[in-house]
Amino acid sequence: MPIERHQTGPRMSRVVVHAGTVYLAGMTADDPALPIEGQTRQVLDKIDRHLAMAGTDKSRLLTASIWLADIALWARMNTVWDAWVVPGHAPARATVESRLAGPTHLVEIMVVAAAA
Amino acid sequence: MPIERHQTGPRMSRVVVHAGTVYLAGMTADDPALPIEGQTRQVLDKIDRHLAMAGTDKSRLLTASIWLADIALWARMNTVWDAWVVPGHAPARATVESRLAGPTHLVEIMVVAAAA
Amino acid sequence: MPIERHQTGPRMSRVVVHAGTVYLAGMTADDPALPIEGQTRQVLDKIDRHLAMAGTDKSRLLTASIWLADIALWARMNTVWDAWVVPGHAPARATVESRLAGPTHLVEIMVVAAAA
Repeated sequence: MPIERHQTGPRMSRVVVHAGTVYLAGMTADDPALPIEGQTRQVLDKIDRHLAMAGTDKSRLLTASIWLADIALWARMNTVWDAWVVPGHAPARATVESRLAGPTHLVEIMVVAAAA
Repeated sequence: MPIERHQTGPRMSRVVVHAGTVYLAGMTADDPALPIEGQTRQVLDKIDRHLAMAGTDKSRLLTASIWLADIALWARMNTVWDAWVVPGHAPARATVESRLAGPTHLVEIMVVAAAA
Repeated sequence: MPIERHQTGPRMSRVVVHAGTVYLAGMTADDPALPIEGQTRQVLDKIDRHLAMAGTDKSRLLTASIWLADIALWARMNTVWDAWVVPGHAPARATVESRLAGPTHLVEIMVVAAAA
C-alpha cells in the first residue's frame, strides 16, 4: 500500500497517510508566550489545518496523545479541548506530563485519524 | 471506512474501532489508593472489559504504552503485567515515567489491538 | 486479519505486524554507557534490524515516538536522527522528556512502519 506524506522535511513529516489512516506529528503552539488556553487553541487549529491536508477532519479522530509540561494545567487545557471536540466523535485519549522541546511550550498533541 | 465508538463522552471515547484496529483510551485504576500491584490489576481488568466491547481480547494486542508516575515501580508493575499477558501473544511495548492527571495514580496504560 | 509477531517474550514482542502495519517495541541502546550520539545510533541500528524482520525498512516509517531522559539532549539526538532519515520519507514524530527504565539510558524510540 502506498504512503502519502505532506509537509515533509529532513526530520519529520507533519502528515503521513497509509491504509486509510492519517498520522500527524506532535503539534505545539506557534506562539509559546501564550498561556495554556491560547497554546491549546493554536495546537488544535494546527491539527485542523493538517487534517485538512489529508482530506479529513476532527470528526474522524481515532486517538490523541497529549503531553503537558505541567500536569496542573490539565483542567485549563481541557476547557479548550472539550469545546473543540465534535460531540459524539471524541477520540481515545491519554494525557501525561512531560517536559517539551521548547522550554516555554506548555502542551503538545499528536493525533491519529481515519481518512475520509 | 466507518468508525465505531464506545463509551463516548464530550472529552474522549474509551474504545474506537477503525479498519480492523481497536484503539483504547489510556486507562487508570478506579481506586488510586491501591499500591502499584493493585492499580495495575485494575487497569488490566479495565482493558479486558473494554477490549470485549469491541469484540476482541488481550491475545490480539498490538502495542501497549505504559506510563509510571515513578519509574522505580517498573519491576513491581511487570510482575502483574507478565502474569496477564497471553504467552506467545505479547504486544510491542514502551514504558516510561510521566506524572499522571490523578496525583495518586501510579500507572496508566493505553493499548491498540486487532479486531477479532 | 492475522497477527504476525517476532522476538516474542513473556513481556513484549519486539515486532508485531497486522493489516499492513508494523509496530516495533520501544528500543534503547545495548550500551547505556555511551553518550547520546552513540546511544541514538545503536537505537536506530536496532530499529533497522527489527524493521527488516518484518520485511520493511526506514523508508516506510509512519510515526516515531522519542523519549529523552533529558530534553536538553534534543539537538544532539537530532544530529544522528537527521542523518539516518531517508530524505523525503520522514515519519510523523513527537519528542518529549521522560525518565526511562534503565537509569543510564538517555533515549528510547518506538516506531510504526508500513509493511513492504
